[in-house]
Amino acid sequence: MPAERSLGELATLVGGQVRGDPGFRVEGVAPLEEAGPRHLSFFSNRRYKRQLEASQAGAVIVAPDDVSLLGAVRPALLVSNPYVAFARISAAFHPVRKHAPGVDARASVHAEARVDAAATVMALAYVGQGATVGAGTVLYPGVIVMEEARIGRDRVLYPNAVVREQCVLGDRVILQPGAMIGGDGFGFAFDPETLSHLKIPQAGTVKVEDDVEIGACSCVDRATFGETRVGAGTKIDNLVQVAHNVEIGPLSLLCGQAGVSGSAKLGAGVVLGGQVGIAGHVTIGDQAKFAAQSGVHTDVPANVTYGGSPFLRLADLVTEVRHLRQRVAELESGRAGPGGDGKGPSRS
Amino acid sequence: MPAERSLGELATLVGGQVRGDPGFRVEGVAPLEEAGPRHLSFFSNRRYKRQLEASQAGAVIVAPDDVSLLGAVRPALLVSNPYVAFARISAAFHPVRKHAPGVDARASVHAEARVDAAATVMALAYVGQGATVGAGTVLYPGVIVMEEARIGRDRVLYPNAVVREQCVLGDRVILQPGAMIGGDGFGFAFDPETLSHLKIPQAGTVKVEDDVEIGACSCVDRATFGETRVGAGTKIDNLVQVAHNVEIGPLSLLCGQAGVSGSAKLGAGVVLGGQVGIAGHVTIGDQAKFAAQSGVHTDVPANVTYGGSPFLRLADLVTEVRHLRQRVAELESGRAGPGGDGKGPSRS
Amino acid sequence: MPAERSLGELATLVGGQVRGDPGFRVEGVAPLEEAGPRHLSFFSNRRYKRQLEASQAGAVIVAPDDVSLLGAVRPALLVSNPYVAFARISAAFHPVRKHAPGVDARASVHAEARVDAAATVMALAYVGQGATVGAGTVLYPGVIVMEEARIGRDRVLYPNAVVREQCVLGDRVILQPGAMIGGDGFGFAFDPETLSHLKIPQAGTVKVEDDVEIGACSCVDRATFGETRVGAGTKIDNLVQVAHNVEIGPLSLLCGQAGVSGSAKLGAGVVLGGQVGIAGHVTIGDQAKFAAQSGVHTDVPANVTYGGSPFLRLADLVTEVRHLRQRVAELESGRAGPGGDGKGPSRS
Repeated sequence: MPAERSLGELATLVGGQVRGDPGFRVEGVAPLEEAGPRHLSFFSNRRYKRQLEASQAGAVIVAPDDVSLLGAVRPALLVSNPYVAFARISAAFHPVRKHAPGVDARASVHAEARVDAAATVMALAYVGQGATVGAGTVLYPGVIVMEEARIGRDRVLYPNAVVREQCVLGDRVILQPGAMIGGDGFGFAFDPETLSHLKIPQAGTVKVEDDVEIGACSCVDRATFGETRVGAGTKIDNLVQVAHNVEIGPLSLLCGQAGVSGSAKLGAGVVLGGQVGIAGHVTIGDQAKFAAQSGVHTDVPANVTYGGSPFLRLADLVTEVRHLRQRVAELESGRAGPGGDGKGPSRS
Repeated sequence: MPAERSLGELATLVGGQVRGDPGFRVEGVAPLEEAGPRHLSFFSNRRYKRQLEASQAGAVIVAPDDVSLLGAVRPALLVSNPYVAFARISAAFHPVRKHAPGVDARASVHAEARVDAAATVMALAYVGQGATVGAGTVLYPGVIVMEEARIGRDRVLYPNAVVREQCVLGDRVILQPGAMIGGDGFGFAFDPETLSHLKIPQAGTVKVEDDVEIGACSCVDRATFGETRVGAGTKIDNLVQVAHNVEIGPLSLLCGQAGVSGSAKLGAGVVLGGQVGIAGHVTIGDQAKFAAQSGVHTDVPANVTYGGSPFLRLADLVTEVRHLRQRVAELESGRAGPGGDGKGPSRS
Repeated sequence: MPAERSLGELATLVGGQVRGDPGFRVEGVAPLEEAGPRHLSFFSNRRYKRQLEASQAGAVIVAPDDVSLLGAVRPALLVSNPYVAFARISAAFHPVRKHAPGVDARASVHAEARVDAAATVMALAYVGQGATVGAGTVLYPGVIVMEEARIGRDRVLYPNAVVREQCVLGDRVILQPGAMIGGDGFGFAFDPETLSHLKIPQAGTVKVEDDVEIGACSCVDRATFGETRVGAGTKIDNLVQVAHNVEIGPLSLLCGQAGVSGSAKLGAGVVLGGQVGIAGHVTIGDQAKFAAQSGVHTDVPANVTYGGSPFLRLADLVTEVRHLRQRVAELESGRAGPGGDGKGPSRS
């Protein structure tokens, strides 16, 4: 249970100003709908004005321009970016669970693995020969780190995550349960003589840079040669496929069930909505954004906001075709004409 | 190998009537195409009349209205809902495998976990501090139950399924292999000052109600606050994504690779076809049904059957446009006219 | 580190001819862009002529017809199929990691399992009662093989892969990390009396034939009756769903996040692009190929190349509709006419 903090302390934490009583005791944070009189909430989007008015929140994080919406009574914490301040304050109330360092007797750590004395290896986790695990890192039960993999500092690998041989993960990386790093890329050459798909050895690795998070059951394949790379600060949701030799720039966001095919290059700050598919070998510019279910088969320049679902486009097209159909019917019946006045052309 | 049963016994089990010999010995159940002379099969859809006629099945479960299709010779079990009766009888022939209760010596159970004496914890399974496991529940090898998770009675967690901290699962729940319950939701606030995506703590949990089944490698994320909820009796197929703060009503069906984005609310009896995507924050009414690959970006009322694949819609649209093209060509060539008689308008 | 080999040796290995010095020492293989002066690369597609010219590769595998593109200086290895030869030579340089045979003391192998003396069972792997594991097979940590499963020879099961009860895998099969074989198929009968989805027992198994590879977190469900079958030599990428009673012919390729619904039958050499969805009960002919994100709801004959993404089709359709709109507008304004000359019909 996190301790109480005063609004003044929290303002100091995020560099904000208090309006009202800085001694107001905050017991926790919550969204507007769920906050009670001892909770601090946040308001960052005027679409939620009604929720603000109805909220029981004892205090609210708000931008200076919006403070008037708050009424005179409630204490407020004024910051330029309420959502960012909320993230920082919520993190203060919900610190990452600490685990005692050390290797559990029921873990399996190879004699030639190097596990930092300040790392935690829980029961039923495995660290292979030549692998390294940095200080502050926690391997939950069922985590498998294979030979010569290198795991940085202050990482959390949740249960049953796997890091295969030689893959490298930076500092402060989080793997959600069942994330699979370093599976073989999908590469085969069809041999007409033996009538078989010959496996192309996947001799490369995966490099996951600092501050990356990878979701449950997401898969990042090792490269054929060289490395598959996930750039610093990028966040990947659940069930996402990142194929061999993909390069993802820093600070990108890949939503659930998105897939990036082999050798595609994504720039910095790219956003893939849910179930987006990126074809192999394409290049996506910085800050390009793709709505859910988009399919991308060609290079895309920087800063483009792309497509959206086939459904949205289809809806537009259906409307257009329906309209055309009517105009054609009018033409056929002789009722349409110049100016579209519905009277039809003069014909004799 | 399940024991033989008489047709009369099976009729009693499902509340049906026997036509023919109630002493007919049934060795097992099978679909029409695969059934032999000692098998009981079922017929529930007149589309499969030909399969019925060709079937070697010794006896058939059939609705009273359809019994005439069966011919005079074969014994029959008459019930109003043959498929439901078949499910019950098949369950009698294929009882769930029993495991001796107890904790295997190679499992890892925290001293402060509470595992019911009638539960089974197999080798290499893990139960964390403060977690509870109810009577009759089976944890297969590789199952990881983290701190303070609560697992009900008569549950089956297949190999390598994970239940993270504080998540709650009701009675008679089944997790298929590699199902991941309680990973962190995908929530970040971009901080322009530090140029980083700040992690929003995912301080909530997951509540999986009674009689839910969750497929292999499906992921249900924990809530930011409060709980992500999967309603009683809902069934989720493989590789399905259920994001943080989603609420799914009872008795819904989510087919393979469907995805539900954050804070979406699904009613009771909702059906999502394979690879369907539901956008965040939308509300889907009871009994709404979505064909495979549908993308849903807005609220949907109850009882709607939605969309279908972009492909089906595209096919219709392609036909429509082709037709329009021809009509326009005819207009242009002066051959079309009122009534669409193909003779063209009188023009002078 | 693989040893050096002479170009002459490698030519013998793949049945090719050397142009230039057969004693040229090759240290390894690499793609054109990354190869250095001691690397052997390959050239198989004239689209990459520029990469060939710019490459630092010391020697190149090339088809006889293309050898002129290579310039006179570099040694070459002439073969009819350079990519296949590259696959074989790369495999020679990157042999599959050997593991000492034997069962690790921290593995969990049932007394009644039969593990060949020449198999490797690593720490934290599990083999259940009555299961068999063939010679040369390697079970990585976290692999779970349940009761009576049968695992052939020379298989590799990467960490946390699962094979459930009674499933059968042939020889030389590879399961990538977290692949899930034999989860229950998704089959329920809605019972209006108890208002519940009754589980249909999934009493069948999975048969994975020889030389199959299955990707990370891919799921192949067990059959309701009989078996779900993956044909010899078929390769399945990551996060692919194969539902109960599916039959996949030999030598097919299923790319990432593709899904095949229940009882669908795929022929030999079928190719599914990424995120393709195949509906239940359809039949797909041999060699049929489906572009990424295709949705397939009907039977498809052999040798068809299907569809492509909704997006590609939409793009064509948008162009077509835009064109029609203009023609209709011209008709309405009286400017179009026979012959489409833009002058409009004579009207009086």
